[in-house]
Amino acid sequence: MARRLVIIGGDAAGMSAAAQARRMASVDELEIVAFERGSRTSYSACGLPYLIGGLVETPDRLVARTPQEHRAKGIEVRIRHEVAAIDTHASKVKVHDLDHDRESVVHYDELLIATGASGIVPPWPGIDAEGVLQLRTLEDAAKVEQRLVAGAQRAVVVGAGYIGLEVAEGLLARGLDVTVVERLDAPMGAALDADMAAAVADAMRRAGIDLRLGTAVTGFTVIDGRVTAVESAAGSVLADLVVIGLGVRANAELARAAGIGVGEAGGIIVDDHLRTGTPHVWAAGDCVESRHRITGRAVVLALGTHANKQGRAAGTNIAGGEASFGGVLGTAITKFQHLEIARTGLTEREAAAAGFDALGITTEAPSRAHYYPGAQSMRIKVVFERRTGRFLGAQIVGLEGAGKRIDVLATALWTGMTVQEMGGMDLSYAPPFSPVWDPVLLAAGKAASKL
Amino acid sequence: MARRLVIIGGDAAGMSAAAQARRMASVDELEIVAFERGSRTSYSACGLPYLIGGLVETPDRLVARTPQEHRAKGIEVRIRHEVAAIDTHASKVKVHDLDHDRESVVHYDELLIATGASGIVPPWPGIDAEGVLQLRTLEDAAKVEQRLVAGAQRAVVVGAGYIGLEVAEGLLARGLDVTVVERLDAPMGAALDADMAAAVADAMRRAGIDLRLGTAVTGFTVIDGRVTAVESAAGSVLADLVVIGLGVRANAELARAAGIGVGEAGGIIVDDHLRTGTPHVWAAGDCVESRHRITGRAVVLALGTHANKQGRAAGTNIAGGEASFGGVLGTAITKFQHLEIARTGLTEREAAAAGFDALGITTEAPSRAHYYPGAQSMRIKVVFERRTGRFLGAQIVGLEGAGKRIDVLATALWTGMTVQEMGGMDLSYAPPFSPVWDPVLLAAGKAASKL
Repeated sequence: MARRLVIIGGDAAGMSAAAQARRMASVDELEIVAFERGSRTSYSACGLPYLIGGLVETPDRLVARTPQEHRAKGIEVRIRHEVAAIDTHASKVKVHDLDHDRESVVHYDELLIATGASGIVPPWPGIDAEGVLQLRTLEDAAKVEQRLVAGAQRAVVVGAGYIGLEVAEGLLARGLDVTVVERLDAPMGAALDADMAAAVADAMRRAGIDLRLGTAVTGFTVIDGRVTAVESAAGSVLADLVVIGLGVRANAELARAAGIGVGEAGGIIVDDHLRTGTPHVWAAGDCVESRHRITGRAVVLALGTHANKQGRAAGTNIAGGEASFGGVLGTAITKFQHLEIARTGLTEREAAAAGFDALGITTEAPSRAHYYPGAQSMRIKVVFERRTGRFLGAQIVGLEGAGKRIDVLATALWTGMTVQEMGGMDLSYAPPFSPVWDPVLLAAGKAASKL
Repeated sequence: MARRLVIIGGDAAGMSAAAQARRMASVDELEIVAFERGSRTSYSACGLPYLIGGLVETPDRLVARTPQEHRAKGIEVRIRHEVAAIDTHASKVKVHDLDHDRESVVHYDELLIATGASGIVPPWPGIDAEGVLQLRTLEDAAKVEQRLVAGAQRAVVVGAGYIGLEVAEGLLARGLDVTVVERLDAPMGAALDADMAAAVADAMRRAGIDLRLGTAVTGFTVIDGRVTAVESAAGSVLADLVVIGLGVRANAELARAAGIGVGEAGGIIVDDHLRTGTPHVWAAGDCVESRHRITGRAVVLALGTHANKQGRAAGTNIAGGEASFGGVLGTAITKFQHLEIARTGLTEREAAAAGFDALGITTEAPSRAHYYPGAQSMRIKVVFERRTGRFLGAQIVGLEGAGKRIDVLATALWTGMTVQEMGGMDLSYAPPFSPVWDPVLLAAGKAASKL
C-alpha cells in the first residue's frame, strides 16, 4: 500500500515538495495530498505588485500550476481546506472544509508543514477599516484592484521595504497620488545601510512620491467604516487606499500547538534536510527558520527562492532521496522604476550587530567602458572583516545592469572568499558590458586596499 | 639616488604597472621610464570595433591616459621609441628613436617587458595588398576608417572569433555588405562548443551577413596593388576591404633574443608575481603566459582585463610591495547586435582535450519571471566532471541580461565548486530580474541531476 504524504499549504514550498516527491516516487509508492486554505495553488506572490501596477495582465498569469494541473500529475490538491490541528502521536491532521464547513481527520505517513508567513499588522486604531489592505495574496490583490477601479486617488503605503517600494511603484504607475510613510530614517532600512538607501529615497521623491521618513503611524481616521486618513505624530495624510507593507512573520502556530519545535526567530526549527524534531514531520518555506551562512544564526527569510529550494529538497528527502538546503545569505533584489537595488550577506550595521569588527567601503563605478554609449554609474558597498578581509556582505544601487551583479558577490560570499581574493577574479570584460575592471572587482579591490 | 624602472610598451600592462609603482614609490625612490613604439599610450584596443562601427565618436575617446597625463603623474613616457634589444647582463636596453632615427642605451635597475601581442597574419598571396588590414591598433583603425570614407562597399572579415564578430557588426552598422569567412564549421569556434555557436551563426545570417563556414582562405586577388577579392577553395568573394581577425601571438621575440625564458605557448614565462627567470626582469600583459586555473597549463590569453591586473601586480612588486596574479579561467564576453555571448573555463571540447571525463549539459531558461514583460530566453551550457560533479566551465548565449551572468559562473569556477553545490546557492530573485530559479541555478541543477 502506498504511504501517504500530507502537505499543509499549496504554495511555493508545499507544491515544490509535492512535484519533486512525485517525480521520484510513483502513485503506488506515495500518495500525495495537499491542503490549501485559499483557492489557488502555486502562484507567485512576488508578482503581486506588478499585477497591481498593470504590468501583469491577469491574476491567472501569476499561477504557475493550477489544482487541476497538479491533479493531472498525480497530486491530490484540496483547495479551501484548512488544517486546524496536527496530532503527531496519532499521525493525523484535522481538516476543515471551508466551503462546506465540514471537518475530517486524515492520516499521514509523512507530513510537510508549508504554512507560509503572514503580513505583520499592528493593532492600530482603524486597522480593520475598509480600504486598509495588505498585498500578500491574490485575494489581497483583488481587493486593491477593487479600490482602484472604484476610483481611489490617494494611496498611502505604510513601510518602505521591498513590498512598500514595489507597491508604491505600481500605484504610481496607475496614476495615484502616493505617500510612503516609514518609521525609520531611510527607505529599505532592513536591507541597506543608510548611505546606500539615500539614492532610493531620491529616486522615490523624484518620481513624485511623498516620502515621509522617521514617521511612525499611530492609527487611521475612519468614516462610515472606510479609511480617510493615516495618522502619525507628524500629522495626518489623506488616504482612500492604504497598503500595509511591514514585513512578515512565520505561520508557526499550528506547529507550535502540536508540540513541534519553534525557534526564537519565530519559525519552525528544521535541520538542513528540512526535518523538524518530530518524527515524520517536515517543514519548508516561509514558516521555517533557516541558517544564515555568515552569522550562523537562525533567521526567518520569507522569499520564494528559499521556499522553492527547501520544498524541492524536502520532497526529495520524503521520497527517500537525499538533498539538503545549504542555508541563506539574505540575498535579495528589487527595483524602483529604473533604479535597481540589491544586497547579499550582512550590511555594515548587521555585521556590527553580529559582533564582527567590520568595515564598509563604497565604490562608484560605471556599468560599461566609459566611451561606450549608455554607461551608467552604480554604487557598490562591500562589507568585510577589518582584520582578515573576510567578505561579509554587499549592497548595490544603480541603473540598468547593476542589480544582478549581486549574484557574483553572493557566489563569492557563499564560498567564503576574502576581498583580496575577490579583487583578482577572472570576470568577463568587453566594452558594452563593463569597464576593464568590472565594478565588482573595483569594489573588492578598494576594500582590500583598506586592509 | 632613485632606482630606475624601464618599461617596454606603453599600453594596458605597462602603464598599469607604471601607475601602480608610482602610487607606491616617490620620484626620489623610483624613476619610471616607459618606451612605446606607437604614438599613443593606455588606449583600449577592445574599443576599436566600436570606433569603426561609429558608436565611439573619436579615437581620443579610447585613450585612458595620454603621454602628457602620465608625465604629469611623474612617469616619463617616450612615444615612437622602440626597444631593439635587452642586455640582461649589463642591465641595459638599446632604444631606437623612430622619428629621429637615433639609437641610445638606457640603464635599468628593474625592467618590465610589456610588449603585447600581434595579430596572426598568414603568408597568403596578396596579404600585403592595400585594403587588407587588421584591427589591433589605433593606426589600424585609422586605415580602416580611411577605406570606409573612400567608399568601401564590400567587406570580407577573415575569422569569426571575437574580433571578427565585433568588426562584422561594426561594418554592417556602417552600411557595408559584409561576408565573414571562417575555416571552422561554426563561428566562435575557439570560444564555444558547436551546439552553442549555432545561435551565433543564426544571428549573423539574420543580420544580413554572408557567413561562409568551413571555408579556408587561400589568398587574395590584387589589382594595381589593391585587394579586389578573397580567394578560397569554395570560390572567390569580391572585396574592397578585408579585415583579418585570426587571433594573436605574444610578442616575445625581444625577450627570447635576450635569453629570457619563453614557454611552449609562445609567451614569456613568469611566476605568479610576474617575475621572469632573469633577475630584475618582469613581464606582464599579452606577451606572457598565464596559468589556467582549471587545466594548470600555461596559456597566452591576450585580454585587457588580464593585462591590467598583471600590470598592477607587477607595479606593486617592483615598488617593493607584494601582489600576485591568480591565474586565468578564460572568461570572456562579447555581443553581436542584441545577442550576448559569454564563456568561462573549459568548453566540452577543451575539457575532453585536457583529459577530463567531462559532460556538457545545456539549459534553456528565461531572463525574468514568465509573466514579467520582456522576458527573453537564454541558453547556458555547463561543463563538469562526470564522476565528481566538479564544475569545469560554462557558456551562455542569449539576449539582454544573459551575458554578464557568466561572472556568477566564473566566480563559482574560481573557487572550485561542484555543480551540486552551485545549484543551491542563494542568488537574487525578483520577477523583473529572473525566474524564481535563476538560470544559473537551473543550469547547475540540471547538470547535477545527471550525476
